[in-house]
Order: sequence, then C-alpha cells, then structure tokens
Amino acid sequence: MSYYQRHIFFCLNQRDGENACAQHGAQEAFDHCKKRVKAEGLAGKGGVRVNKAGCLDRCAGGPVAVVYPDAVWYSFVDSSDIDEIVERHLKQGEVVDRLVLPDNVGR
Amino acid sequence: MSYYQRHIFFCLNQRDGENACAQHGAQEAFDHCKKRVKAEGLAGKGGVRVNKAGCLDRCAGGPVAVVYPDAVWYSFVDSSDIDEIVERHLKQGEVVDRLVLPDNVGR
Repeated sequence: MSYYQRHIFFCLNQRDGENACAQHGAQEAFDHCKKRVKAEGLAGKGGVRVNKAGCLDRCAGGPVAVVYPDAVWYSFVDSSDIDEIVERHLKQGEVVDRLVLPDNVGR
Repeated sequence: MSYYQRHIFFCLNQRDGENACAQHGAQEAFDHCKKRVKAEGLAGKGGVRVNKAGCLDRCAGGPVAVVYPDAVWYSFVDSSDIDEIVERHLKQGEVVDRLVLPDNVGR
C-alpha cells in the first residue's frame, strides 16, 4: 500500500523573466489545497499529502499538478477548481475529467 | 498510461537552523540522478522524470525520494545508491530493496 493514499504535487516553478506556473497562481492553489485537505481531515500517512514541486515539464498546460499513485494530471484556473479536486479526487477517488491535462500537452 | 513511466521526487527541503534533507546531500543526489537519467537516455515523456520537491514529511529517514506511480520510497547515502536506483529501478523497474524506507518512518 502507498504511504500516502494520494500524493499531489504542485509545480511552483519560477523562471527569471520567463513564463512559469508560479506566475499563474500556482502558489495560491497549493496553499488553498493544503488548507482544504487539512480542514477535511485528510492529511497524513494513509491519507493525502499536498506537496511543493519544481518544474514538472508540462509547462504548456500550466499551472499544473499531478496526483499519484493515480498518475492523473490536472490543469486548474482558480480555487474552485482546487476545491473540486480536493472534494472529488483527493477525498473520494474520482477523477475530475473536466480539469484533466490532455496527454499531448508537454513543455 | 502514466505520462512519465517513472517519476522520482527528491526532497530538497531546507529549514533555518534545523535538520532537513538538504543538509544531507539531497541536492547532490538530485543532480547526480538527473545527470545519470539523461546520460542513459531515459528522460522525458514515456520515460523518467527527475523532480525537485519540497518536504515529503518523512524526515526521520532523510534524505528521501519517492518513485511514482510505483509509490516506492527510498533513503540513500551516496551517489552509488543513486546509481543503483537509476540502473535497477528507473531503468529496469526492479525495486532496490536494501534502500527502501521502512513504512513506519515518518516525520
């Protein structure tokens, strides 16, 4: 069994003078997700871990996050998107299809 | 199928005046892993991604890394440990048992 039932990584990458997830609300999304997961009592071993990450190399779809071990990638816009990922995927294990990053989106 | 066949995250967390993975060679291990994966031609979509991460919250076993979607956690000491993870796990899909972090190791 996975140490964390679901482990979500947010790209918080910054680039000097270049476009990157951090310029598109990634930090705010991470903070919001972390807060919501804690408030729902999901955090910790056997539950959910919300993690900072460097560049996930799928910048064209940024800001992005990936949920493992499910290997489901998301592109999000605002905190209501994050709420939906928390409520449906991190809590209930359902993929939020409307936010899934298409497989052909790379750097 | 997973966008990356195997996605390894290294904790590179630093804490002011406190013990953390970054004080135990985590950055050097990350750099070495990234270089080895590239040299082996494993990097990219359908292959391997070597990623920076913030605190993975299993500090007692640090420095640590986790390979997804396999959900296998490692604790390592030096670059020969990293070579073994690259050669056996990232390249061939075998778990390197001697480096696996016991399930009861947390923060």
